[in-house]
Parts: sequence; C-alpha cells; structure tokens
Amino acid sequence: MARWEPDSRGRLERAALALYGERGFENTTVAAIAARAGLTERTFFRYFADKREVLFWGAGALQELLVTAVTGAPDTAAPIDAVVAALEAAGGVLQERRDAARQRQAVITANAELRERDLIKLALLSTAIADALRARGVASTAASLTADTGIAIFKAAFAAWVDETEQRELPQLIRDSYDELRAVTAGAARP
Amino acid sequence: MARWEPDSRGRLERAALALYGERGFENTTVAAIAARAGLTERTFFRYFADKREVLFWGAGALQELLVTAVTGAPDTAAPIDAVVAALEAAGGVLQERRDAARQRQAVITANAELRERDLIKLALLSTAIADALRARGVASTAASLTADTGIAIFKAAFAAWVDETEQRELPQLIRDSYDELRAVTAGAARP
Repeated sequence: MARWEPDSRGRLERAALALYGERGFENTTVAAIAARAGLTERTFFRYFADKREVLFWGAGALQELLVTAVTGAPDTAAPIDAVVAALEAAGGVLQERRDAARQRQAVITANAELRERDLIKLALLSTAIADALRARGVASTAASLTADTGIAIFKAAFAAWVDETEQRELPQLIRDSYDELRAVTAGAARP
Repeated sequence: MARWEPDSRGRLERAALALYGERGFENTTVAAIAARAGLTERTFFRYFADKREVLFWGAGALQELLVTAVTGAPDTAAPIDAVVAALEAAGGVLQERRDAARQRQAVITANAELRERDLIKLALLSTAIADALRARGVASTAASLTADTGIAIFKAAFAAWVDETEQRELPQLIRDSYDELRAVTAGAARP
C-alpha cells in the first residue's frame, strides 16, 4: 500500500492545470504532472484514468447534483424554474473553484478535441436533466426543450463567469442569463 | 478522366445509408458502398473524404443557408425571430429529404462516435448563427443565448420529424417547437 498523501487529487489537479497552461495540454505527460505534484504516476492513475480526465472528472458530480435538485424541486415548480434553480445550486458549488475553472477553460479553449469533449459533456448533462424532468411527468419534447434551454442559459453564464473582467458570481450570472433569455423570447416580434 | 456518372453523389449516399442500416456503420467499407452504387472507390473519394462524411456533408450547406438567412433578415426582426425564420427556411430544404434523414438518424443513434459528431455539428451551427447575430449588432452574450435557444428549438423539432409516427413537416414543427419554448419560458412561476 502506498503511503496516503493528503489532498493528492487536488495537488495533481493543480499541477496538471499549471503544466497545461505552461506547455499546452498535448505536451504535458502524466509523468510530468506527478513529478510537479511530488507524487508518483501510480498515484495519478489512482485518481484519473488519463490526463484528459483531470479536466472532466467533476462532470459526474455536477450531473448528480443537477438531477437531484431537479428531482427534489417542489411539485408546483414550472419545469424551467426547477432547472434554473438546479443550475443555480450547481453554480454555487462551482463558484468556490473560479480560479481553477478559469485555468481549465483556457486549456480547453486552446484544444479542439477538448472543446468537443466539453460540448459532449454539456449535451450529456442536458440529457440527464431531460430524463429527470420526464420522471416528474413533463412531456418528452418539452423536457428536452427545457433541458436544452437550461444548458443554453448555463453556457452563457459560464462564459461570462470565466472572463477575467466579470465580477458577478455564477449563481447571479445564471439568474441574469435566465432573465435575458426571457427577454429574448418574450420580446420577439411574432405574436 | 473518369467517365461522368449522373447523380454519383446521390447514388453513393443511398448505397451507404442502405448498407449502414443493414450491416452497421462500423461494418461497412468504402469498397462495399462503391460496389453497391455501381461506382469505383475512386469516385467515392471524389465526393467524400471518408465513410463518415456521407452522413455529414450537408452541414456546410446548412450552415451557409442559416447564416445567409439570419444576415438577410429585416433590420426590424428580433434576433430570435431572425433565427427561427432561418431555421424554418432550412427546414423547408431538409423536408425534401425526410426518408434519407430518417435512415441517417437511425445510423447515428446506433453509434456513440457519430452521436458525438452530430452534437458537435449542432454546436458549430450555433456558433455560426451567433456570429451572424453579432454582425447584426446583437450583444455577444445575447447572440450566443439566442443561437443556442434556436438550436434547442431545432433539435426538438428535428427529433419529432424523424419519428415515423410524426406527420407534420419540419418547418411547422420548428414553429410549434418555438411556441412551446415561449410557453415554457413565459409560463415560469418566477416573475
């Protein structure tokens, strides 16, 4: 048994994000990440399947949080409000990791394959939210449409949040983005 | 120079969709597609880079159609209306190919990599629409939000359209999906 190292996951993640930023994702090896973190490669693979997973390991927890929140929303909540409240709750958790999120976003933006992976992650979140809405009795098409709309709101808020010049916190940005969406759709010229 | 074959692209596409449906995408070779179409592999590669492109070659034309329609919308059109009108126009073109679209969708649904490619295609369409909205003077965040909302509308409409039991045509489904989105957001409990 290897000796237990406190916060190994966090150390590996910080080392990886620093190296991805310095050398690029493509040019960083697991060996270099482990060395920077003062840990072994074996320890790295105890936490992450590969160097890409360092950027995406939180997706499962995020999905669980969103699904739990949608499922537990009051029966009286409109589907879109259940989704936006779930996103705000998730935003509150993510808010604690703003610096890491900014570093991560810069790495993803610089790499086409990672951008694709990120899009797929969001699409899977949308599918999970739609399933949770259907379990609440929302009709199938409305569930997909509401979930996709929620993800559109989240994407817009997240893009602002990782911008260095943006001061608002993520839950606030999600509320603002939702208000903007309501203005976008309600303000349409068609009756 | 090879002899010109009438409608080679269409013959290759029909042969590919038939074989993907019969054998699965993974188990179909370019050689088999060309043989089924009564053409050579060399002719295949004059039209498609690989067997995957048979399923996605229309994306460029679709994007151009959407961008042109958004760009050419009346100055007075609200951004979301410009986008929905563009989607309806694209829907009218796609409507002519409903049988091929249904075959194609079954192939994509059965293959994880193709599903991912399809998601990425939609995300690229959204980016192109957002750029076209920004060129009309729409603020950056509103442009992304409006484009993503448009794609959410399109996805819901398209999913219904490729369903064998659905009789409505794609432009009508897009309008209905837009109305549903407006109900989803306007009907929310939050003020």
